[in-house]
Amino acid sequence: MSELSRTTDTPVATVKYYLRERLLPPGLRTSPNQAQYGDEHVRRIRLIRALLGPGGLDVATAREVIGAIDSDLPLPHVFGVAQRAASARIDEREVDAAALERADDLLGGFAIHQDNPGRTATAAVIRAIEGVGQRDADDWYRRYVEAALIVAEADLDMVEARATRDEKAETVVVGTALGDALFAALRRAAQEHVSTIRYEPERAEAIRRTRSSR
Amino acid sequence: MSELSRTTDTPVATVKYYLRERLLPPGLRTSPNQAQYGDEHVRRIRLIRALLGPGGLDVATAREVIGAIDSDLPLPHVFGVAQRAASARIDEREVDAAALERADDLLGGFAIHQDNPGRTATAAVIRAIEGVGQRDADDWYRRYVEAALIVAEADLDMVEARATRDEKAETVVVGTALGDALFAALRRAAQEHVSTIRYEPERAEAIRRTRSSR
Repeated sequence: MSELSRTTDTPVATVKYYLRERLLPPGLRTSPNQAQYGDEHVRRIRLIRALLGPGGLDVATAREVIGAIDSDLPLPHVFGVAQRAASARIDEREVDAAALERADDLLGGFAIHQDNPGRTATAAVIRAIEGVGQRDADDWYRRYVEAALIVAEADLDMVEARATRDEKAETVVVGTALGDALFAALRRAAQEHVSTIRYEPERAEAIRRTRSSR
Repeated sequence: MSELSRTTDTPVATVKYYLRERLLPPGLRTSPNQAQYGDEHVRRIRLIRALLGPGGLDVATAREVIGAIDSDLPLPHVFGVAQRAASARIDEREVDAAALERADDLLGGFAIHQDNPGRTATAAVIRAIEGVGQRDADDWYRRYVEAALIVAEADLDMVEARATRDEKAETVVVGTALGDALFAALRRAAQEHVSTIRYEPERAEAIRRTRSSR
């Protein structure tokens, strides 16, 4: 246990908490006070920290997606579990028929089921955005769809590149939970970048020159 | 107050909570038990609900971004406040020099400040993703950057289309907080769409035919 704690740079109390919450499988008990932990425990602790940290999942949701990795569920089901888990903060009661119709207009060309969590969430977000008076956002929405397709193709390519079912399942969970955080982070950097180029072209050029002379 | 509650479909107790938390400015007091509320209160309640709901902000953070809208801060500062607010779940202590270097490689062409919250968050997420063994993700990252640039251009275009400083500031806050949620939603729909086209082309074609015959 103390070695596992050192290797993963995670306090013993936190490791015990993960065990108690059934996020981490128990070690192989070798005596009443000793248990053996292996590489899969190290790997699992890093996954738990990634999901609870930048992934933004709560403990119950992390337990659910980890359960999906460890199960025999076929990949499309793992995708479904991961998608619903990372969409939890959308309150579906905030969705009405008019909002769903707006979402369907936007996703008109998509081959998806009616209960796709992204469809409902799209409707909830559009409703909120239009509720605050942002009503001429059609072009903004369309460009978001274009970007989402680029990212979805990248997500599926990364999963396909994995060799085994278990590696694929873990990539689905990591990619779904941390992909949102990655995109949000890149979007913030891209906003400043685009804004600098538009409104402070001299500064953008100066930064470019500093970099290429290094 | 009861009229405001009806118009916005928000319980009186919730409106009182928003007032108490200084999310909503007080009405014009006309008698000890009466206050007058205007269109700006209706609009503000919808904004609060959007930020606390699909926007995923907590009360303190919502108060901060609303304060930025109501202030005289120039727009780039409002962008900064909104960006930091909606990036709160990244723990910067999880970032080390190696992760920042990886982020800078990825964002190499970007004209941004060292303390851009997206740069730090990108480093934290890359660290988490590589910590769980996803080490050959360079192509995946690059395509996310491409998509983030499309979205950032769309974000700035929407802000530019607004006429006044206050409308621009509100669009910055709404776009930053709800844009993340919108993209995450669209990404989920796009994942199922791309997956159906790749692995169930007959079903994708059947859905297309059903739609065009309607």
